[in-house]
Amino acid sequence: MEFASDNASGAAPEIIEAVSRINAGYAPSYGADPAMERVRGLIRETFEAPDAAVYLVATGTTANALSLACLCPPWGAVYAHAEAHVEMDECGAPEFYIGGGKIVRIGGRDGKLAPADLRRAIEKTPQGFVHSVQRGALTLTNTTEAGTVYTPAEIVALTAVAKEYHLPTHLDGARFANAVVATGATPAEMTWKAGIDILSFGGTKNGCLGVEAVVIFDPAKAWEFELRRKRGGHLFSKHRYLSAQMEAYLTDGLWLKLAQTANDRAAALEQAVLAVPGARLMHPREANILFAYLPRSTHRRAMEAGAHYYLWPFDQSIEGPGDQALSARFVASWCTTEAEIEAFTKLIRG
Amino acid sequence: MEFASDNASGAAPEIIEAVSRINAGYAPSYGADPAMERVRGLIRETFEAPDAAVYLVATGTTANALSLACLCPPWGAVYAHAEAHVEMDECGAPEFYIGGGKIVRIGGRDGKLAPADLRRAIEKTPQGFVHSVQRGALTLTNTTEAGTVYTPAEIVALTAVAKEYHLPTHLDGARFANAVVATGATPAEMTWKAGIDILSFGGTKNGCLGVEAVVIFDPAKAWEFELRRKRGGHLFSKHRYLSAQMEAYLTDGLWLKLAQTANDRAAALEQAVLAVPGARLMHPREANILFAYLPRSTHRRAMEAGAHYYLWPFDQSIEGPGDQALSARFVASWCTTEAEIEAFTKLIRG
Amino acid sequence: MEFASDNASGAAPEIIEAVSRINAGYAPSYGADPAMERVRGLIRETFEAPDAAVYLVATGTTANALSLACLCPPWGAVYAHAEAHVEMDECGAPEFYIGGGKIVRIGGRDGKLAPADLRRAIEKTPQGFVHSVQRGALTLTNTTEAGTVYTPAEIVALTAVAKEYHLPTHLDGARFANAVVATGATPAEMTWKAGIDILSFGGTKNGCLGVEAVVIFDPAKAWEFELRRKRGGHLFSKHRYLSAQMEAYLTDGLWLKLAQTANDRAAALEQAVLAVPGARLMHPREANILFAYLPRSTHRRAMEAGAHYYLWPFDQSIEGPGDQALSARFVASWCTTEAEIEAFTKLIRG
Amino acid sequence: MEFASDNASGAAPEIIEAVSRINAGYAPSYGADPAMERVRGLIRETFEAPDAAVYLVATGTTANALSLACLCPPWGAVYAHAEAHVEMDECGAPEFYIGGGKIVRIGGRDGKLAPADLRRAIEKTPQGFVHSVQRGALTLTNTTEAGTVYTPAEIVALTAVAKEYHLPTHLDGARFANAVVATGATPAEMTWKAGIDILSFGGTKNGCLGVEAVVIFDPAKAWEFELRRKRGGHLFSKHRYLSAQMEAYLTDGLWLKLAQTANDRAAALEQAVLAVPGARLMHPREANILFAYLPRSTHRRAMEAGAHYYLWPFDQSIEGPGDQALSARFVASWCTTEAEIEAFTKLIRG
Repeated sequence: MEFASDNASGAAPEIIEAVSRINAGYAPSYGADPAMERVRGLIRETFEAPDAAVYLVATGTTANALSLACLCPPWGAVYAHAEAHVEMDECGAPEFYIGGGKIVRIGGRDGKLAPADLRRAIEKTPQGFVHSVQRGALTLTNTTEAGTVYTPAEIVALTAVAKEYHLPTHLDGARFANAVVATGATPAEMTWKAGIDILSFGGTKNGCLGVEAVVIFDPAKAWEFELRRKRGGHLFSKHRYLSAQMEAYLTDGLWLKLAQTANDRAAALEQAVLAVPGARLMHPREANILFAYLPRSTHRRAMEAGAHYYLWPFDQSIEGPGDQALSARFVASWCTTEAEIEAFTKLIRG
Repeated sequence: MEFASDNASGAAPEIIEAVSRINAGYAPSYGADPAMERVRGLIRETFEAPDAAVYLVATGTTANALSLACLCPPWGAVYAHAEAHVEMDECGAPEFYIGGGKIVRIGGRDGKLAPADLRRAIEKTPQGFVHSVQRGALTLTNTTEAGTVYTPAEIVALTAVAKEYHLPTHLDGARFANAVVATGATPAEMTWKAGIDILSFGGTKNGCLGVEAVVIFDPAKAWEFELRRKRGGHLFSKHRYLSAQMEAYLTDGLWLKLAQTANDRAAALEQAVLAVPGARLMHPREANILFAYLPRSTHRRAMEAGAHYYLWPFDQSIEGPGDQALSARFVASWCTTEAEIEAFTKLIRG
Repeated sequence: MEFASDNASGAAPEIIEAVSRINAGYAPSYGADPAMERVRGLIRETFEAPDAAVYLVATGTTANALSLACLCPPWGAVYAHAEAHVEMDECGAPEFYIGGGKIVRIGGRDGKLAPADLRRAIEKTPQGFVHSVQRGALTLTNTTEAGTVYTPAEIVALTAVAKEYHLPTHLDGARFANAVVATGATPAEMTWKAGIDILSFGGTKNGCLGVEAVVIFDPAKAWEFELRRKRGGHLFSKHRYLSAQMEAYLTDGLWLKLAQTANDRAAALEQAVLAVPGARLMHPREANILFAYLPRSTHRRAMEAGAHYYLWPFDQSIEGPGDQALSARFVASWCTTEAEIEAFTKLIRG
Repeated sequence: MEFASDNASGAAPEIIEAVSRINAGYAPSYGADPAMERVRGLIRETFEAPDAAVYLVATGTTANALSLACLCPPWGAVYAHAEAHVEMDECGAPEFYIGGGKIVRIGGRDGKLAPADLRRAIEKTPQGFVHSVQRGALTLTNTTEAGTVYTPAEIVALTAVAKEYHLPTHLDGARFANAVVATGATPAEMTWKAGIDILSFGGTKNGCLGVEAVVIFDPAKAWEFELRRKRGGHLFSKHRYLSAQMEAYLTDGLWLKLAQTANDRAAALEQAVLAVPGARLMHPREANILFAYLPRSTHRRAMEAGAHYYLWPFDQSIEGPGDQALSARFVASWCTTEAEIEAFTKLIRG
């Protein structure tokens, strides 16, 4: 009963096998491996973007920070949701790579930005006024940190505001697959057709060992990205092991199958949780993450029996008196089993 | 006949198997995996350094740049051999991570620094003079870029100069295993007993997929390193795949066996090359890299028949007229076979 | 009738004369001038801080950014009021000098932080959690951006929270003189006795040409400051012209006399404004800045007649219909005359 | 007898008077002062460059570092003479502002680069090779650190090499006036007509208090420069005091008169020195700096009698035994008097 994070999962068998298989013999290093050529083709096909520049890195923080550094000057403001990973969970990596930029935190229900709030934040940055940082870039997250999902139309509404101010746009897609499955939209509809300029396309959380693709829809930034990647220490010498993961991930729709499983399991978790008296959702459950309130006694029983997940936010205590409802985050992954859900269901049913 | 780089090699079977094996089930993320605990123990045991702080990253550039950033302030000079990887091959990663430092290039025969030259370079940086960058740190490379090896006594002679000026020391050990095997010294004798403060302990070139350990002998810098690693995007969520590689690498002396093979093959290459009339060494061959001169016609014959390696430096041409001797670099790895050596031997014998 | 900013004022006669006087003959450069030695003595005496390290720079942004860079690591959070100059008006200079830190904006009435809000913001930065930026430093502003003044007791209440978390503290004293005059407290009571570690001691706005002293009460950071100053381009070769300004400023209490005049004129402005029907204060007027609401028609009349000041915030329009009250900022300086106040009083009286 | 540095001189009377005069009344801040408008016109006229963007800063290090940051990306190499101020005397300011670039040191007789050496250095930076820093920018110094002067033809020969590789060019003109006077060429011929893109136009060493103009001949970089200047803390609020200096400096050819005096005095020094038996030049004396060898006993006699100048390089000792020739640097400035030269002449004549 592991619901703490999709990072606790291993890699899907197809991915591990691909890594083993690619191991045979010699291969050109630093991204010149034939598998990378195939990955480039697969990504371009998947995203209907024949000109996209495609690069692989090993972590999501890297994909985000390098992308934002390519889009935002050192004196720029990055507009982001207040709870975004780039703001909360990267120890300042974007500011480091950008060279000292500023993340402008924008609130928003259920982890999503509202166009009017974005516009207000942009307007509040007095462009052309040398005393202030300048308007830099927009970054969105899909699936959001709250487990909700932007539809293509919602993305368009936000990127349209950014474009109005000539701002480039980035999408943190650490859980992009879960969002695609949730909406039924195509990868293209969820990205460049919706106004996204650079995508961090996550593999790690969804069944890979450690690989993220950066998809640069306007390839003018490609060489700069390569230099920033190398300079950040993120260019792998034995690059084939990144390529093999991404190739397997994109082959035969594996990435979507894995995400479908994760989303389905989260839906089952939602049903189980909502059946508990006093339970209620904290955010709509739209992909593979569930935020819900359960009575403290229910949490205690579940955790003591081995269910692993976090109270969310962290500053609540399982130990306190009373049986008030405490909010928690439950993450399902490609390898969450029906048996785990059933066991958990029994536990919380009491 | 692949002698271009040890980066072209795959991973040793034991390493790949360890990666597959660790895949089962859930594991705590971000370095809290049990395998990392074992790696920490293995490294401390291997280096007889029970207090060392140990971290894993995926590339050598990262290990070097993060280490130097922990040792050298933004206004500091890093003393390095003029041909060092940190100066020539990292696109300015050390300067980026240090926050704008300066690498002071020091010449030296066969890729090695001489203590007197190091002292001269340090003295030339006018310490306490605010107009100049300040004396920062010493970095050595072992096995050197010229394929030679520092003995413990040679390292002591250099770190002693550094210590005289209160400078911390780093060792770029991307090919540390090859140096250990070449000298027969213990890992401790090659590092902290010889005055090294932080070691980049290479796994990637010597049979891993992509893993380097950073061994911080004085753990006071540990937390700063962790923050710099995260902030650089180098903390892996599914960290177990790094741990598994390093664990297998250190188990039953695998790392030394692999390096022994590489060194032996390079020795065989040396013999083969020196048997060619007109051939001679460019640097002493002491580990797994051979620098040698061969007649242009010999190079041409070998390359046309499929031998893969680089003329070194790059600006020589295989196409020119005349049959003068051209220098080249040949790298053997853990997976270079005797058959490859034999085939190559036949080729160049003509 | 210039009330737009104290930056529009010239330098006091004593200051200009000192600059002319110091011009005679040769002088050692880069801060080794005898006048700097005298400045050091004057500052230490003024602040009852015989061990303080003292440096001069030419702008307030520089004083702030260099100070914060000495106190906060690149991965640190600087706790500041949401309207602080370091956050709003320095184009990201603190982030640039810190090397990519994050300013945590804390709201607070009348430009002042409340201890409980500071504590909450610090607690929200999860110390020891590698995914987040770390708790870095506290910066206060006195006189605040809202024209209000912290008393020594209020400063103590805030620095005590910081110290509880082992955080160093900085005071942006661009208008420090005005705050000292307003409270009647001693410079020491307003700084190190109240828990301040580094002070940006402003001269420019209060009658100098361009000079700010950085007073480092714990001199352990002194050498680092010198290197950061040089590296930032802020070490003057002909340093005597900075020294002369600061020497004259501190001689015979000139700095306090100038600030007293500015505060007195602002008090007179306050009286004049409050006499207008419909006028009211936006913040308490405690030093040389007045924030007040006046009817739009009154603003229009005043501005058309040549009064120069800003509607505050900027996004209000003098042109709109109706006669609602609009807020504005009025700044008095050492050279604001009684005649200006009288002329303005007449104007707005209608 | 002050020959240590032109930084030891005060400001010319015209400059000091201009600063006093501009002090009257209010003035718009942050560069919007009317005097700056006049400065812009004077610089454009002086340089025959009607479209040039013109900015003022207070130090030469700032002018250089900001200019190079506008020309060279963070991963770029700046080609400079090994003894250039940007390499030797700025505590890494260019690397700091560039964001971690690398200065490539090129040797060259008498402080001057030779086109062939520049070409070799550029060629050695393997462009388009992601492992290396990239070719960034060329910076020249005129008057050079060795006191010699590039002619327009020599500058053209160097910038032509840079342009061949599409590299932008910067000129460190801390002693630009002395070079103009020495060559008799026009300011335009010494800069944009000779292929220079950005000029650091020095005022401080040649009779100002502290002001340097940055002249950007291609104004496309202007806004970036403004942001970098503000962000570096170099935008003066009471900007008029910078403007007044530069305005007076450029009025009625004052800048050239001051430089002419300095050059003339250095010529007289040269004659005096060469009259000493055993004396000889270290570099040709072409502007206001003289490098010459004199017997140790002569130096001792002069210094003991109060002549102030530096043995150059610093690591020679006036105290040693024997009477060998020691090299020294003598700098004349706008305020060096004939009396000083005569007194010194007498002294060294013995």
